[in-house]
Amino acid sequence: MTLLVALREWDLAAWVARFRRELPGREIVALGDPFDRRAVEYAVSWKHPPGSLAGLPNLEAIFSLGAGVDHLMGDDRLPDVPVVRVVDPDLTSRMSEYVVLHALKILRQQMRYVRQQQERVWQDDRDQPSAADVRVGVMGLGVLGLDAARKLRVMGFDVAGWSRSPKERLDFPAFSGADGLATFLARTDILICLLPLTPDTRGIIDRKLLGGLARGGRVGGAHLVNAGRGGLQVEADILACLKDGTLASATLDVFETEPLPQASPLWDHPRVTVTPHNAAMSDPVTIARLIAEQIRRVEAGEPFQNVVDRTRGY
Amino acid sequence: MTLLVALREWDLAAWVARFRRELPGREIVALGDPFDRRAVEYAVSWKHPPGSLAGLPNLEAIFSLGAGVDHLMGDDRLPDVPVVRVVDPDLTSRMSEYVVLHALKILRQQMRYVRQQQERVWQDDRDQPSAADVRVGVMGLGVLGLDAARKLRVMGFDVAGWSRSPKERLDFPAFSGADGLATFLARTDILICLLPLTPDTRGIIDRKLLGGLARGGRVGGAHLVNAGRGGLQVEADILACLKDGTLASATLDVFETEPLPQASPLWDHPRVTVTPHNAAMSDPVTIARLIAEQIRRVEAGEPFQNVVDRTRGY
Repeated sequence: MTLLVALREWDLAAWVARFRRELPGREIVALGDPFDRRAVEYAVSWKHPPGSLAGLPNLEAIFSLGAGVDHLMGDDRLPDVPVVRVVDPDLTSRMSEYVVLHALKILRQQMRYVRQQQERVWQDDRDQPSAADVRVGVMGLGVLGLDAARKLRVMGFDVAGWSRSPKERLDFPAFSGADGLATFLARTDILICLLPLTPDTRGIIDRKLLGGLARGGRVGGAHLVNAGRGGLQVEADILACLKDGTLASATLDVFETEPLPQASPLWDHPRVTVTPHNAAMSDPVTIARLIAEQIRRVEAGEPFQNVVDRTRGY
Repeated sequence: MTLLVALREWDLAAWVARFRRELPGREIVALGDPFDRRAVEYAVSWKHPPGSLAGLPNLEAIFSLGAGVDHLMGDDRLPDVPVVRVVDPDLTSRMSEYVVLHALKILRQQMRYVRQQQERVWQDDRDQPSAADVRVGVMGLGVLGLDAARKLRVMGFDVAGWSRSPKERLDFPAFSGADGLATFLARTDILICLLPLTPDTRGIIDRKLLGGLARGGRVGGAHLVNAGRGGLQVEADILACLKDGTLASATLDVFETEPLPQASPLWDHPRVTVTPHNAAMSDPVTIARLIAEQIRRVEAGEPFQNVVDRTRGY
């Protein structure tokens, strides 16, 4: 069998080498090199050029190199084969590190104390709320959202969740669909966005959504943490909401355009935290190993795991 | 019965009012006011003037208004009655918020990203370790240390503990005594200090101890977080260790002198985080309520809870 590596932006040669190590004896080819299109049974993609996976008559599956698959769903000539996501337990843990770090940063006013230190000011806050006094809302209850919610609850936060379709057997309050969104937002002091990017969620973090957040809580207003995808947010609306008090702060790991353009006013806004899309970096070796394991499993007659529902886009 | 409120630095009238609300019908008096010394059965103390609790012939117990009791153990005329600590679950939770926040801040290089944002630099770190790659050592395995260790483990850190005397039935590696200290330090990338301040622990965080920490780990050297007491640390040694690379960073909530003097070089050291002794602020209403509950419990014939071992000093 042949595995085709089809990616942009990332280091192609390094990925080809990783798959050669993990799948010894198989043929690993890269888009752009000459190869026999009929021999390709599997493709791995990160932002492959649209159409470049068409005309592979024996293709059995496409693997996304990241947890998100929005980068390939826009390809209208994507072959009609299973699209398989990587679910990396380590990546899940890293995302929860980021979410809990920034939720605690907001709760404990860490940026205030950084500024006070710069000014040599010793001033505590007798009215510091504890985590139990603060309502965190997690949008997106997939593997990442559920792990983040669990860890936020261990830290003591009052957590609720929202997802497109109802989830069962959760041990915390959860809301779903358009009907549940307003209720969910109205009880949320800190909004954590871990949604997938789909046609339904593009631009969902806009003035209307942010305007629905609670503002009477114990953390000085409503706070946004977006560690999902930049396409979920409308940055002009976030800036306007910071200006008029609808939002107290925004912590953004993802942006409409990445890297964040030098001219963006987000960089030096005093109530914005910018991180360079590194909330949950995958270890490339782990990703290659997980994909190789899936290929061996399928060749042994087992079904694919973590197949994307293409009607939903995630 | 009469309750004597004996404190310095804090708002005396507010504390007297709180105890009057929580213990209606009892006499609440303040040090400095005239009162019948023979009527005093209970005293509550925060840094009471040494000797001021002597000559109370019917005193039955002294309550410390904080989790630590070092502030009263230096009084060599302290009456020989039970000294009772407040164990406030909310305070425990707040301390763990602080510990997990700063451990994650170190793990995720948050101060680097704050600086990058100031310089509009978009630069991730492909070698970011995950929590499982980082060894955290918790010194002090009382109520605070055990809760912090548990929550650090939920976040994925590789946690071990150290305490003066051996602890049983722990579900993580723990070391004890002078013999166990070197082994504990040698496997610690991030040291969390939650020890009580006693004659044995005064100045324990010195060049010798810091020199024993691991420096080959995944977080760029050894890191100190002290949220215990300022008397545990030798600040000149911490500064020297930061200078010569023995320490990569120090996060300090407590100091030899508080408030931290304006002239301290800790304020603007680029690898030091200063917070104003607010890692775990108690809610005064909760403290007064917990003490009132103990008094009612003892008057109903039950024993005191959380009595200090005066030979150990905690």
